[in-house]
Amino acid sequence: MSSRFYRAPDNKQNPRPETGVLLIVEVIAVGTELLLGQITNRNAAYLGDKLAESGFDAHYQVVVGDNLDRMVDCIATAMGRADAIILTGGIGPTQDDVTREAIAAATGRSLEFNAEFAESLRKFWETRGREMPESNLRQAEYPEGAEQIGNPKGTAPALALEHDGCWIFALPGVPAEMQFLMEHEILPRLRDLAGVDHVVLSRLIRSWGRSESQVAELLDDLYNRSTNPSLAFLASAGEIKVRITAKAPTEADAVELIAPYEEIVRERLGASVFGVDDETIEKVVLDLLNERGWTIATAESATAGMIAARIASVPGASQVFRGGAVVYATDLKASILDVPQEVLDEGVVSDATALFMAEGAARRFRTDVAVAVTGSAGPDPQERAVGTMIIAVHTPEGSGSRVMRLPGDRERIRTYAATAALHLVRLAMVGEWWER
Amino acid sequence: MSSRFYRAPDNKQNPRPETGVLLIVEVIAVGTELLLGQITNRNAAYLGDKLAESGFDAHYQVVVGDNLDRMVDCIATAMGRADAIILTGGIGPTQDDVTREAIAAATGRSLEFNAEFAESLRKFWETRGREMPESNLRQAEYPEGAEQIGNPKGTAPALALEHDGCWIFALPGVPAEMQFLMEHEILPRLRDLAGVDHVVLSRLIRSWGRSESQVAELLDDLYNRSTNPSLAFLASAGEIKVRITAKAPTEADAVELIAPYEEIVRERLGASVFGVDDETIEKVVLDLLNERGWTIATAESATAGMIAARIASVPGASQVFRGGAVVYATDLKASILDVPQEVLDEGVVSDATALFMAEGAARRFRTDVAVAVTGSAGPDPQERAVGTMIIAVHTPEGSGSRVMRLPGDRERIRTYAATAALHLVRLAMVGEWWER
Repeated sequence: MSSRFYRAPDNKQNPRPETGVLLIVEVIAVGTELLLGQITNRNAAYLGDKLAESGFDAHYQVVVGDNLDRMVDCIATAMGRADAIILTGGIGPTQDDVTREAIAAATGRSLEFNAEFAESLRKFWETRGREMPESNLRQAEYPEGAEQIGNPKGTAPALALEHDGCWIFALPGVPAEMQFLMEHEILPRLRDLAGVDHVVLSRLIRSWGRSESQVAELLDDLYNRSTNPSLAFLASAGEIKVRITAKAPTEADAVELIAPYEEIVRERLGASVFGVDDETIEKVVLDLLNERGWTIATAESATAGMIAARIASVPGASQVFRGGAVVYATDLKASILDVPQEVLDEGVVSDATALFMAEGAARRFRTDVAVAVTGSAGPDPQERAVGTMIIAVHTPEGSGSRVMRLPGDRERIRTYAATAALHLVRLAMVGEWWER
Repeated sequence: MSSRFYRAPDNKQNPRPETGVLLIVEVIAVGTELLLGQITNRNAAYLGDKLAESGFDAHYQVVVGDNLDRMVDCIATAMGRADAIILTGGIGPTQDDVTREAIAAATGRSLEFNAEFAESLRKFWETRGREMPESNLRQAEYPEGAEQIGNPKGTAPALALEHDGCWIFALPGVPAEMQFLMEHEILPRLRDLAGVDHVVLSRLIRSWGRSESQVAELLDDLYNRSTNPSLAFLASAGEIKVRITAKAPTEADAVELIAPYEEIVRERLGASVFGVDDETIEKVVLDLLNERGWTIATAESATAGMIAARIASVPGASQVFRGGAVVYATDLKASILDVPQEVLDEGVVSDATALFMAEGAARRFRTDVAVAVTGSAGPDPQERAVGTMIIAVHTPEGSGSRVMRLPGDRERIRTYAATAALHLVRLAMVGEWWER
């Protein structure tokens, strides 16, 4: 770790040597359109991901408008708490592109002019047979001592400047240009400067069927005990994800650090674990069907096609997915899926109806497996209380149904029911209905 | 404007009275997963848009991890430069949800416990027949003096606290919960507190069938001429929205400012205008069906339930939506929808197949209207080039089909095709197929 990156405790926030963090990097996105919500700050997500991958730490991300004073304020603050700063945006040719000026002001440097680059700019425009607006020459300016880094995907050069042991990088806001320069110019410099000698690896364990707080309680000791690997919980759309992140000299070492924790997590969460990393439940279900050489059909009332659409979203779904019926009107449950009228008379939102729907779908669509949903999505209750969803699964090994009470509004209830249906198909195929 | 919101020049950044900005609001998004780029900070974009719409100003947006010290640091900084702070995330039940603690620490207040709310939490879990993990009780805590705002879309209550003339609001990170609370609880409070003496009104004119540049060209003069009302173009998922925004003393005045512009926009964009504001195409289609007393069915191959799911997403859809078939496998197009085998032999991705699918669906599901989609969504082409989607619409007044070539990946192609299908149903019902 080069002395340049020694962190004075007074102005840098708790470095975590024990986790091997060599650099704290702060991302500052420049652009009033970001503050106004006209653009989503995807650049920050991309940079955060790339930095974490390399084992660099991010404590803050900031968005600031095209305003010189506030940009200087942000850069000065970041210099006081980070080893490196990555600015995105504001290095173009227009009047509101003032990132160059802001870096100069924040570091008390003058703006120099790169005549050679200005010449290449003119040539660039000439070859396109157009006259260059003078404002473009702003792109030839740079804070004294800064390096201009050529931008092969655009005209605005990136900037790199060291000041008081903090490195400041300025990148374009255009994602394609920013990403190319980050990958090929900035990341390699950061890794060299930091003398990176380790990797950071994350493993995502995905589960369904337990609440986030139940999962947290089951893993409480791991969460509190361990800093490397470290645990985090992420909840989204009814799924609870446990992320295990390890820092180690080599990828193999990181994998070794993670493995025992993954084992414990799987052991404690049991059958609720359905996949890892970017495996979705629809993908997992399709893989299970492919393994068994089974096909699947859907029979949907309340979810009205959501389950089918999600299964078909996986490329190659046609190998096992044949189709399904959306039977919203009660009489169609009889005419399309052969649900006996007397069963419907006893209750459309019932286990019996759901089971007949699933069996009817398997027969009519000639599949081995079928999943059916009937329920009361609201806003007005249908037979049962709003949020009551009944899911039935039919496989060559048997059939079963489950009554669920889901919270939220119509859209959330339907989405969660579709997710639950896919998970119950998996549990039925692996021979485990999740016990509550 | 209440004196509480007087801005001392030393710690608040240039207010902009000329644009009627009454409040400076800073958004702080909490979550290590944001810093790591595992989640894109769409909440900040949503909040930035809502705040700007109401004439509030945003100078900075900040993202901070689940770290108490750094959150306190961010809140303290924001209190020094904003009139109001909106925090998103970190108010859930797990160990890493520390927004409540951070607000208490930043304002030097103690954490109180709301026993009544704790009781309601227990009841919430009881009604779901599950035992509540103790950690959930964290959601009953609040900084002394803060108001807990009920969260009808989730369990974690939002928080509102005034401290030293700065208002601090804490919202959940889950977008649906955050957006609901922002719209129904936080925005009205901000407007009251600021004593907003003018209204900012936006009218969204929604169109489909023209490119953004075509729309921009048709409205170029309005766009350049007018500052109040002002025009903006928004493109999303194939729809082009024109937003007309007016600032006026009263809502009636704003409506009056907007009306003549809406008239011109409608006149120039013609039949491509399908709705205004939050009217979705599915809602518009359902309203048209209700007017005519017609029912509708779907027949989907490539979109595999997407159209049905979108129609059923509208509350009350059951009045006119009866159901539909997902016929992914070719043989089901014949067995379920009676598409003649010789037609299928000539081409599954063909106008004839699409037309027979629509007519079969109307007959089998006993509806007046039916819409069918067959196509090649990729990644591997099926008969026709990837992106080729054929949409047929059947109404009591006739049938028609349209071949579309859609860009993008599998998911985008399917989503755009579902949107196009709904728009073509509308155009068929109003007697206008959009000419290219």
